[in-house]
Amino acid sequence: MKEHQATDGAAEERPREAGRSEGAPSQSRAPLWEALLAYRERKPARFHVPGHKGGTGLDPEAKHLLGGVCEVDVTELSGLDDLHHAEGVIAEAERLAAACFGAERTRFLVGGSTAGNLALLLAVCKPGDVLLVQRDAHKSVFNGLMLAGARAVLLAPRIDPAAGLPCGLALDDVERALAQYPNAAGLFVTDPNYYGFGTDLAPIVAAAHRRGVPVLVDAAHGAHYGFHPGVPASPLAAGADAVVQSAHKMLPAMTMGALLHLQGGLLDRAAVDRALSVIQSSSPSYPIMASLDLARRQMAARGDALLGEALETARLLRDGLAAMPWLETAEPAGPAEGRADGPVAGTGVGGVAGEGPVRIGGSITRDPLKVTFRDRTGTLGGRELAAELEARGCFPEMADPVFVTLALGLSTPRDDIGRLLAALETICSDFRLSEKELGEPIKNIYKSPPSRVGQGGAAVPEPVSFRFHRSDAGALRRVPPEKAVGAVCGAPVVPYPPGVPLLLPGETITAEAVRQLRDWQAAGLGIHGLDQDDTIIIQTNGEQP
Amino acid sequence: MKEHQATDGAAEERPREAGRSEGAPSQSRAPLWEALLAYRERKPARFHVPGHKGGTGLDPEAKHLLGGVCEVDVTELSGLDDLHHAEGVIAEAERLAAACFGAERTRFLVGGSTAGNLALLLAVCKPGDVLLVQRDAHKSVFNGLMLAGARAVLLAPRIDPAAGLPCGLALDDVERALAQYPNAAGLFVTDPNYYGFGTDLAPIVAAAHRRGVPVLVDAAHGAHYGFHPGVPASPLAAGADAVVQSAHKMLPAMTMGALLHLQGGLLDRAAVDRALSVIQSSSPSYPIMASLDLARRQMAARGDALLGEALETARLLRDGLAAMPWLETAEPAGPAEGRADGPVAGTGVGGVAGEGPVRIGGSITRDPLKVTFRDRTGTLGGRELAAELEARGCFPEMADPVFVTLALGLSTPRDDIGRLLAALETICSDFRLSEKELGEPIKNIYKSPPSRVGQGGAAVPEPVSFRFHRSDAGALRRVPPEKAVGAVCGAPVVPYPPGVPLLLPGETITAEAVRQLRDWQAAGLGIHGLDQDDTIIIQTNGEQP
Repeated sequence: MKEHQATDGAAEERPREAGRSEGAPSQSRAPLWEALLAYRERKPARFHVPGHKGGTGLDPEAKHLLGGVCEVDVTELSGLDDLHHAEGVIAEAERLAAACFGAERTRFLVGGSTAGNLALLLAVCKPGDVLLVQRDAHKSVFNGLMLAGARAVLLAPRIDPAAGLPCGLALDDVERALAQYPNAAGLFVTDPNYYGFGTDLAPIVAAAHRRGVPVLVDAAHGAHYGFHPGVPASPLAAGADAVVQSAHKMLPAMTMGALLHLQGGLLDRAAVDRALSVIQSSSPSYPIMASLDLARRQMAARGDALLGEALETARLLRDGLAAMPWLETAEPAGPAEGRADGPVAGTGVGGVAGEGPVRIGGSITRDPLKVTFRDRTGTLGGRELAAELEARGCFPEMADPVFVTLALGLSTPRDDIGRLLAALETICSDFRLSEKELGEPIKNIYKSPPSRVGQGGAAVPEPVSFRFHRSDAGALRRVPPEKAVGAVCGAPVVPYPPGVPLLLPGETITAEAVRQLRDWQAAGLGIHGLDQDDTIIIQTNGEQP
Repeated sequence: MKEHQATDGAAEERPREAGRSEGAPSQSRAPLWEALLAYRERKPARFHVPGHKGGTGLDPEAKHLLGGVCEVDVTELSGLDDLHHAEGVIAEAERLAAACFGAERTRFLVGGSTAGNLALLLAVCKPGDVLLVQRDAHKSVFNGLMLAGARAVLLAPRIDPAAGLPCGLALDDVERALAQYPNAAGLFVTDPNYYGFGTDLAPIVAAAHRRGVPVLVDAAHGAHYGFHPGVPASPLAAGADAVVQSAHKMLPAMTMGALLHLQGGLLDRAAVDRALSVIQSSSPSYPIMASLDLARRQMAARGDALLGEALETARLLRDGLAAMPWLETAEPAGPAEGRADGPVAGTGVGGVAGEGPVRIGGSITRDPLKVTFRDRTGTLGGRELAAELEARGCFPEMADPVFVTLALGLSTPRDDIGRLLAALETICSDFRLSEKELGEPIKNIYKSPPSRVGQGGAAVPEPVSFRFHRSDAGALRRVPPEKAVGAVCGAPVVPYPPGVPLLLPGETITAEAVRQLRDWQAAGLGIHGLDQDDTIIIQTNGEQP
């Protein structure tokens, strides 16, 4: 039964008490999963939600796939705790996760990293507060700022000159922003990014902590970090105060299963709890929560071994790609950590090798389980190449006009690497790619120097506010970029690659930003937010043209 | 692959185009589910998230239950559309749902009705707006008002004198509130409530529409309404502008699967879409979405038949309960619609029968699939009775200090009714309940007249603001209720039953409210928010005591 009263003494009735008297469970246990199994084994008469009643009500055609999960798709029954007031098996599972991931406190998320980001921003920012925010953040970060009524100072990431992709904040930029905004409510970092690139966070965290500024890290793509010397360290090891990780992305949890880790004394943990209970469903999915418990148990028991196998699989893949001259893999030129196999050699970085690595300051980290590449003959754009792979049964994680990105997992079968390499061989053959001339290396795909993206340049930009836009007539307007100079941006303008916003809603549009936009457009990059009629969206505060 | 660019022409590549040329699919199809099956049948090499890679990476101990769902736990691959920019199979599935449920537009929710309520409030309310809100709303409604910066005029529901439970708004109260706040941004109704009680919404919607005020309905507990003459009509049939339904509660969808229906021209649909993409995960669960598609297909094909069987099951349960004099079932005294079996007779309503039904104005609706009862001998409180049922393998939906509530589903097995009745027989025997004297009927469990709950009484109350509270020293304080008169409430104070808040954060605490609190406490009701040290929480705006 659910208690129709949240704060009374009913928790004492729960069966967990028995387990507790034996001391905290070990990492070999999965308390939430075990409680679900125990409930199922009772063959209960289910007079509770969900309405499929253990799967008996499912469409018969779906039972072979969904019947199993529905047996443990339950609600806040006695003994199954309550995510929003966890005191039993969920609290135990969260404590085990905290110990496993190196946090002081871990909260389970059922709304993905989105829920963690939104809740953190609500908890940390009061209306009007300034937050230092890495510019290539997930949209949930800007949405969270909007909900909290906070303002952001947007810090552009470095662009790795060899890979042509963003690779985290420069320490110098952070130091200057902290000096200018010493009372910032926090520094919000995204690391690693979608491509698996990032930076050594320890000096950045130390700089923020010297000012008493908490560091919040969206590590949605890096839940496996820290479990093997061949992958980068966890942001928690770097001292970050809050870390959000999508356990469903790189660990074997179900989609929407994520983790929010906390440590240190700079954050108001009760406020984080309240914010999570604002943002997340009051009927959280037990299978998703249990999959977090199970994934944690796997990582605690075999994380190192699983990652060792996965890194070997990734090495096989990279070796195979390196043997195809028409393919160019995006690897950072800077000193990269988290390489399973030492410096990348002969993997198609090509043009850069002869020029020596370009130092862009600070240590670049790279997730060896993410692989980004392109057709260097220019025959197939990233989307075309991905579509050809899909036609051959191989489904990439992401594509943009230039690149294809693959996400390996801890369990990617070696057979799948063989299938992928074979598919690439047939594509090469079908399009006669080996007969074509190789184009410029990646580092030259931008006409502008591949330094920082965004209009701020080296200066610390002004704080930007985020508003929720209704369809009020005249509030937003489309104009050609050149006529938008001086206006306030109304919708994001993002070149792909590298996927770092050139303009975000609330920012004032500069002539320099428009020049960069046109340069990149001329270089053939896709510009998200530049419509087919060559307009971008500005805010007009209700004035009509 | 995911497109790393949201607005280009990539949608044209999607396989749905083939299906489309044959015209819109019929209700016998489940386009999203079918697309997931088609993907699975390709035996794909999965270089995409989630990290379990089709279940291969799952903990081996979990594969028997989670292996199936993980085969279709995928991401925004080609052909699988994107919830946040639906143009393919998700859009088709949503269109079919709209047609099936009687909406003009339906959006799938993966964050439960919580996500729908939050998004509606963000979309409908500008900061400072006044919304008319039924007082016994779900916490997500107050959270949504907080996020939107809107104020609420809190309207108390009627309390049915026989059942002792809330049963929706009185038309008179709505009319008076509309007269006083004709520019309200909307009227937010919760119907049915957790107990399955509600009111005929058609006249309430008509009154609001006469003022041009949109009506938003949290119908989380009523997704089955309108599919059979034996259950109440859907709020959409009553003309509501927006309706949120938890498909996972009463239909056979997976937990967190819910629906947001829209109709009419009073709401800004683009703003609702934007708000949904703010609140919901950017990695929505495909199994949950597909379970919505499948549940819709079942209701379209067999909703009437499934409900017919369920109503017969419910009748068997009620007949069985009626044969136990020590059990009293909470049934409304007013004219109730949605009864499968005509007026409830001899079901333990006891004391009321001789006195004739008490009219409280307006037509009460009742969900026949929800059954609420108590031990009228007073031997077992609601929680004790629920625990005894659980010990016998029967798991209720909810319990409070007085009542136990069961939620039947469309597929509740008849065997389970037998198990429940047998369990109650053994409880009766073990506690010798048939030998004990029957206490007062339900209608007398309140010492105060069971009219409206809340301090406003008949007057339309002042608007209340909701704030997100951090743990700032002194912002909240605990004081005895008598010393709180005149202060602003800091945390909800809710008597159970009926679960209608007496005080909500932001409301000024009146002497009358404190008197009611003490009366109900003396009557033995549980008071959520009154701590063991006999204090409640007030706001102090930072002043120290």
